[in-house]
Amino acid sequence: MNDQTEQWGIFELALNGNVDGNPFRDVQFSGQFSHKHRTIEVDGFYDGAPNGRPIYRIRFMPDVQGEWHFRTQSNLAELNGKEGSFTCVAPRAGNHGPVRVANTYHFAYADGTPYKQIGTTCYVWNLQGAALEAQTLATLAQSPFNKIRFCVFPKHYRYNENEPENYPYPCLSKGSSQWNGSWMVDLQSGWSFDFERFDPAYFQHLDQCVGQLRELGIEADIILFHPYDRWGFATMDAEHDDRYLRYVVARLAAYRNVWWSMANEYDLMDGKSMADWDRFFRVVQESDPYQHLRSIHNCRELYDHAKPWVTHQSIQRPDLSQAILWRQQAAKPVVVDECCYEGDIPMGWGNISAREMVHRFWQGTAHGAYAGHGETYLHPQAILWWSKGGVLHGESAPRLAFLRQILEAGPADGLEPIEEIMQMHPCAGKAHSYYLIYLGVSQPALLEITLPEGEEYRAEVIDTWGMTVTQGEVYHGRVDIAMPGKAYHALLLRRLPEALPSRS
Amino acid sequence: MNDQTEQWGIFELALNGNVDGNPFRDVQFSGQFSHKHRTIEVDGFYDGAPNGRPIYRIRFMPDVQGEWHFRTQSNLAELNGKEGSFTCVAPRAGNHGPVRVANTYHFAYADGTPYKQIGTTCYVWNLQGAALEAQTLATLAQSPFNKIRFCVFPKHYRYNENEPENYPYPCLSKGSSQWNGSWMVDLQSGWSFDFERFDPAYFQHLDQCVGQLRELGIEADIILFHPYDRWGFATMDAEHDDRYLRYVVARLAAYRNVWWSMANEYDLMDGKSMADWDRFFRVVQESDPYQHLRSIHNCRELYDHAKPWVTHQSIQRPDLSQAILWRQQAAKPVVVDECCYEGDIPMGWGNISAREMVHRFWQGTAHGAYAGHGETYLHPQAILWWSKGGVLHGESAPRLAFLRQILEAGPADGLEPIEEIMQMHPCAGKAHSYYLIYLGVSQPALLEITLPEGEEYRAEVIDTWGMTVTQGEVYHGRVDIAMPGKAYHALLLRRLPEALPSRS
Repeated sequence: MNDQTEQWGIFELALNGNVDGNPFRDVQFSGQFSHKHRTIEVDGFYDGAPNGRPIYRIRFMPDVQGEWHFRTQSNLAELNGKEGSFTCVAPRAGNHGPVRVANTYHFAYADGTPYKQIGTTCYVWNLQGAALEAQTLATLAQSPFNKIRFCVFPKHYRYNENEPENYPYPCLSKGSSQWNGSWMVDLQSGWSFDFERFDPAYFQHLDQCVGQLRELGIEADIILFHPYDRWGFATMDAEHDDRYLRYVVARLAAYRNVWWSMANEYDLMDGKSMADWDRFFRVVQESDPYQHLRSIHNCRELYDHAKPWVTHQSIQRPDLSQAILWRQQAAKPVVVDECCYEGDIPMGWGNISAREMVHRFWQGTAHGAYAGHGETYLHPQAILWWSKGGVLHGESAPRLAFLRQILEAGPADGLEPIEEIMQMHPCAGKAHSYYLIYLGVSQPALLEITLPEGEEYRAEVIDTWGMTVTQGEVYHGRVDIAMPGKAYHALLLRRLPEALPSRS
Repeated sequence: MNDQTEQWGIFELALNGNVDGNPFRDVQFSGQFSHKHRTIEVDGFYDGAPNGRPIYRIRFMPDVQGEWHFRTQSNLAELNGKEGSFTCVAPRAGNHGPVRVANTYHFAYADGTPYKQIGTTCYVWNLQGAALEAQTLATLAQSPFNKIRFCVFPKHYRYNENEPENYPYPCLSKGSSQWNGSWMVDLQSGWSFDFERFDPAYFQHLDQCVGQLRELGIEADIILFHPYDRWGFATMDAEHDDRYLRYVVARLAAYRNVWWSMANEYDLMDGKSMADWDRFFRVVQESDPYQHLRSIHNCRELYDHAKPWVTHQSIQRPDLSQAILWRQQAAKPVVVDECCYEGDIPMGWGNISAREMVHRFWQGTAHGAYAGHGETYLHPQAILWWSKGGVLHGESAPRLAFLRQILEAGPADGLEPIEEIMQMHPCAGKAHSYYLIYLGVSQPALLEITLPEGEEYRAEVIDTWGMTVTQGEVYHGRVDIAMPGKAYHALLLRRLPEALPSRS
């Protein structure tokens, strides 16, 4: 048992215990973790029986440095009343804690470091076998992405006919793996599973993947349900849905880089009602001791992100200029996790040009929102980044790295839409300090701006595709700023420090 | 007096007559033109007194070949009861008559020739003096444009500080020509006019411009009111507004290439109510013997194009994919006359790239609509095509000529949106015959299409920017069509003639 755990690291307690019956169902196991006046209740989980010895674990992420004490509760005597303590020490370099909402529309790590979301999507990268998963991690390590969306359950879809090595539940009968041209749940597919017990091996691998992302400093936006299913995981009943959610939360919540996404394209899951989605949010909210970020991703109809259990908006839409509207609808961060993917597949959502992908990120930025990347280039072995990971084939990622640099060098609080300075082109920034005007398909040779009175600004012309920043003049008052007359540029106006009053 | 007039040409009757008082107000003058069982009533107009002899004219456009008889009516004896006849003969080459709505969402000339609208805008090209006007006409003659929007009244705006050579009304006092940064009507500008009488010289020049366009085969989309005014023409009272409309209609309706646009950006004219706009439509509708096309152009709020006096929709919006919606709102042709202009001026509506302009035309086409061009490049003498004409500086016009060629080689009836063949990318065409799929910012390397059973189609890949058409294979059934994997391409599927049944 570790007696030192870094802040926002994982303290893990593992105990053996024997039970007659189903250890997933029949054993209640939890721990109370106390620091000074504060006590946090944490659910444990059954993790299988390696070498025939059943093992139960509790994972805890301490958020404050100092002495922590714990005591377990269980209906199984061997797991009950165990006590101990550990010391929570300073976090290692690169560990900033979990990401939280900050300043209404933005994010920051728990230690206050701003978090500028540049996401990507690889829906089932975690179910592709060791070699491809290692390649994906190596690609991510070199990429601009600080968040990745992926699923707990395997995916049934075009380019997704391979079976995972394991399943989340013991398999009772195997069925077809073939993509039949429809994502509609196929009840005749021949697959059946024992939903009364999980397969710990499947979830141990998921833990490992989340931990690997954590080491890379990448947030894991975990998709709990999705409609693309041939196995029956999308059509379990409410009791099994809820038990599944509690099991995943018990296993993963202690990983500081976890975000919860109730679903991908929730509105395509005909078997679930809005009441189900609301309940899933509440189950996760009640189970998660750390209150990780929670959202849900639409296909057609947006979920009502104003509901209190939603922490941020996870939106699918191609037009990011609407972010202003979404900000008004729910005063929460807007992340357009799917704005179509760079690629060349036949489907319209998966074949926009790299230039368009970069454009949409900048559109989002200039409207006070964040965007998500994905890549869908045809591949002889059907290894498309969007679903399986691997390597990147496109041209947008370096430009998104460039954007991330600019965001990270910008205001810590994030960029708010600012309409006053520039009527006809979107501008985001921080009033009296920083104005980022994105011009998109516009190509002005001249921009006219009225700067706040008595303030001086340095202009920088940004070529969002060419990835250059050209220093311009210092301006004040009502100014005409010469621009290159080319599309996909931005203008950044950064305020100069006030001159010190001169001594006479 | 001509005794032969071509079909859809102008038969003009000119009579002298003296009146005490104001000949614009106090003289009623009209003619009845009869062919067989049909009689058409046409208003005349006073056209000034060259060499001191007051002259009144009636212009008539016969729409049927054969003998026509006329007889005048007037409260002035010298103009009353004049009779005569003329022969309407076959139209000359290139004269197809006025453009009408055809097939609900499209246009055709009166002789049945399809009209595929590729418009442009030069708001006051007609008020720029002989040299520049001649240059504009020479440019138009070489251009793809078969319609031009322009105003009767001069324009007050940035880059529009020059005064016209004449005014539509006698000038009582001159005022400032300076652009003051606001298009709001400036009642302090110092200008005043005698709204009780027109200046015939001003309107004679307008007649000439419309006639010159007619000779080039270009439709004159005449904008009757607009808000950009420093002279007071935008703020006349209802009586003068209506008299102005009747005067313009009397002078110009006989020109077969006339379209009536009640206003540009009607919703920016604070002094006019919706009842005024409805009345203007009815005044024009009642006065125009030929029922030329009638519409009205918005800035923010669309006018309700479903109203019965509107013949087609003249829309300002940047996103032409919404044409589907507008078609549903009013089953009339959709012309997006302003979708922003190619250029580099500071204003967002006037600085899109040539590529984006061409893209918007293709977007419109693929959604069953038509679009309009304009050009706004900064110019040392402030000669911007959008307002003054001159020469074209941009890169979109040749691509619009290419589009026009494709449209004119396509189905005569026009292109209807077709969703069934292609879910994710817009397609317009004629079912079982012709499918034009526009890919825009998408860059598929493969397209999957299910062609109607038992029909064969030739594929053609169109590079909308490169202006090439590459012949592809012949396909039938469910097919995968290889595409170049580049943005701004289209796929055209043209049905092959059925093979003759083979004889055995």
